[in-house]
Formats: sequence, structure tokens, C-alpha cells
Amino acid sequence: MRVAVLGTGIAGRTLAGRLAELDHDVSVGTRDVESTMASSQPGRFGSPPFAVWAGQHPQVSVATFADAARQADLVINATDGSVSLKALQDAGAENLNGKPIVDIANHLDYSGFPPRLIVRDDDSLAEQIQRTFPESKVVKALNTMNAAVMANPKQLAGGDHTVFVCGNDAPAKTVATDLLRGFGWTDIVDLGDISAARGAEMIMPLWIQLMQSLGTAAFNFKIVR
Amino acid sequence: MRVAVLGTGIAGRTLAGRLAELDHDVSVGTRDVESTMASSQPGRFGSPPFAVWAGQHPQVSVATFADAARQADLVINATDGSVSLKALQDAGAENLNGKPIVDIANHLDYSGFPPRLIVRDDDSLAEQIQRTFPESKVVKALNTMNAAVMANPKQLAGGDHTVFVCGNDAPAKTVATDLLRGFGWTDIVDLGDISAARGAEMIMPLWIQLMQSLGTAAFNFKIVR
Repeated sequence: MRVAVLGTGIAGRTLAGRLAELDHDVSVGTRDVESTMASSQPGRFGSPPFAVWAGQHPQVSVATFADAARQADLVINATDGSVSLKALQDAGAENLNGKPIVDIANHLDYSGFPPRLIVRDDDSLAEQIQRTFPESKVVKALNTMNAAVMANPKQLAGGDHTVFVCGNDAPAKTVATDLLRGFGWTDIVDLGDISAARGAEMIMPLWIQLMQSLGTAAFNFKIVR
Repeated sequence: MRVAVLGTGIAGRTLAGRLAELDHDVSVGTRDVESTMASSQPGRFGSPPFAVWAGQHPQVSVATFADAARQADLVINATDGSVSLKALQDAGAENLNGKPIVDIANHLDYSGFPPRLIVRDDDSLAEQIQRTFPESKVVKALNTMNAAVMANPKQLAGGDHTVFVCGNDAPAKTVATDLLRGFGWTDIVDLGDISAARGAEMIMPLWIQLMQSLGTAAFNFKIVR
């Protein structure tokens, strides 16, 4: 599958690397390819500059948001939630129409601690994306765990934990679910239509508290039933 | 231990019954004992009138909020979140001061579906209670699963799932944790101070979505790490 991963942060890199490992045709989308590749700034959590990562992953191409989305069958929004709508606008509705957009982002305000949710309760980032791009097929998934767990669930407790999906378009959910199975996910819970993203996004404050309490980001929710 | 369970709904009844079974000295607190016992109205989820339940549990006493709290070592707030502050005010600060209050309530607006949270993101019901009764020791716990799972965690997957506690007072958290162990809980995660109740309360929308998707309330979150 031709997959565009929008976003050059840890989540974008981790998913792009994993997708390439699984023999998908992957391009990472960024606002400005030249400045992204020229930057020597480390990432937010001390990750190396993007160009270093890109040099280690020659099978992954790097393109503008628009170029990456244009050639893709499926788009993953791995940008920071604060810039997701802008990044997708740069990608262009014409390059997103008819395509599944797997939205893994969270929109948090990091100005204080704990970070606060920007959208919540009666709306969600995923719904904002779906409203902004009504011809695309938004599927919320993977926003409830850290990047390493997203891409390699079996590295944690053999994969015995849960990922949620929701969205309005059943075929797009099937495509997303197949992608998740490819990563190694086995417990994939369909929460319903895209409005269920409210619940999935609203567990981020608990996730952050848990990361503090447990002293690690290597954990996940399992729905025991 | 002398425990006051405030609230005559399913959660209050289930916890009171379980506490009595575990040989605690339990009283259920209600606004007006006479009208509670006289009512022939079924509960919200089709449960029998309270007096029927009380007749089946003669070892549990029924008292006003104030009388129940006065004689208790520990108070459980099992009232509906919309009336919790009022119920605790009826119980009286003088009967709550110095005591652990285990707050299991959620404050939801049931006027639409899915229900919405009333307090969220930068506050929580538990913090409101702690601010209103600064001399009490509020511990948030048990608000993230249904009543049967709260009281008998081992009935679900042998108890292999998680309950959260948080609060400002370490000894009160120890008392609450011991109570939870008595119910059968083994994976008790301390989230930190009472502000962590924000995260615990904000997973209710996901819980409700999961109940819809799974078609059952007999599930719980497990933190896999």
C-alpha cells in the first residue's frame, strides 16, 4: 500500500519506519522538505534531527504534505494536534478526497503541567478533520499509546492489550484495521462512528498521569471483558 | 471498620452489601430515610425499590447522610455526581472532618447521548469535594468501572485488571487501598494527588462508548506494562 505519513516527529518516524519494514511504499510528508532536511535541531524528546533518521531509512521518501498525500492510498496524520488541520490543508482536499485518513494525533496545550486538552467533551480533533475534509474518510486510531507501542504492540506483553478505532466509513475502518493487524495488533475495538473519538482523545490526561506514576511510557490500556 | 455509604443507587447498594459481607459495620446514608424506605419506585436501571434491597440486607443500617457520616471511620460518596456536593453538605463538614472520603462518583449530564461530563480538564468532582471539605481526606477511586466490578473485581477475568486511586493524604490512600484489597483488587495504581482525578473522571466518555460497543458493562481497564 502507498502510505503517506504526515509529520516528522517520533510518531511519524516510528510508524513510517515500521510501514517500510512491512514493505509498504512510504513517504513522510512535511511542510518544507528543504528546511526539514537542513535542520540540525533535535526533536522534542531528544530525538536526533530528522535528516539523521531519514539517512538511516533510505527506503522512506520525504515529500511535501501535498506530494506525499497525492500519491498515497492512505494518509496517516501523525502531526502534532495543534497543527494537524493546517498540515492537512497544506496536503490539500484534492489529495485527500476519497481516501482514509488515519488520525493518530492529540491536541494538547503543553503550556502547563499536566497538559490540557484543547478539544473535548462535545467535539474532537478527529471530528474537526472529518468536518474540514468531508470527502475523506477519517479513522481515529493509535492516539492512546506511545509510538513504540503503536508500531510494535507485541513488544509489550506479547501484544495483549487494546487499540481503538472509530470512523463513519466502514471500508476505511477495514483498511485501517488491516494496517493495525499488520503492525501486530490483535485486540482492535471498534468504538463506532467518528464521534467516539471524543472518548478516545479524552483518555490522554489519564495516560499522562499514568506515565508519571509508572515512570514509563511503555504501557497501554487493555479492555478486559 | 465503620463505613458510611452515601447514596442508595446501584453503586451504593452494591458496595454496602459487599462491605457487610466483609464484616464491616455499614450504614447507607440517604437524604430522607422515611421517604427512601417508603418509596416503591424502581431505581434508574430497573433495580427494585430501596426498601426491598434493605429488607434483604438487615445487617446494613439506613440513616440520614449526617447520622451515617457521624458514626463512620470512612465515608464513601456513592451519590450521583450531580448531587454529591449537596449530599456531603447534608452530611455536614463536622461529620466529615479528618475522615477519608472515597469518592466513586461521576458528574455527567444525561440529557443527551452520549452523556457529557460536567467537570473536566482543569477540575474534577473529587477536587470540588476536597475544596469544599478541606479538613476531609478525599480519595478518588472506583469511578472507572460498573458497580459489580467495583465490589467483586475477581468476578471479571479473575481480577486481572486495574483500579486507580489518587488523593492528597497518604494515610487516607492507604486506608482506601486496604479497603480495595478487601474487595479483591490486586492491581491498584496510585495516580498521585487529587488533581489526578481529572484523568480518571475523563475516561467516562470512553467507558460509555465501550459499553455500547461491547454490549455489556462487565469490563474494565487494565494497565498493561
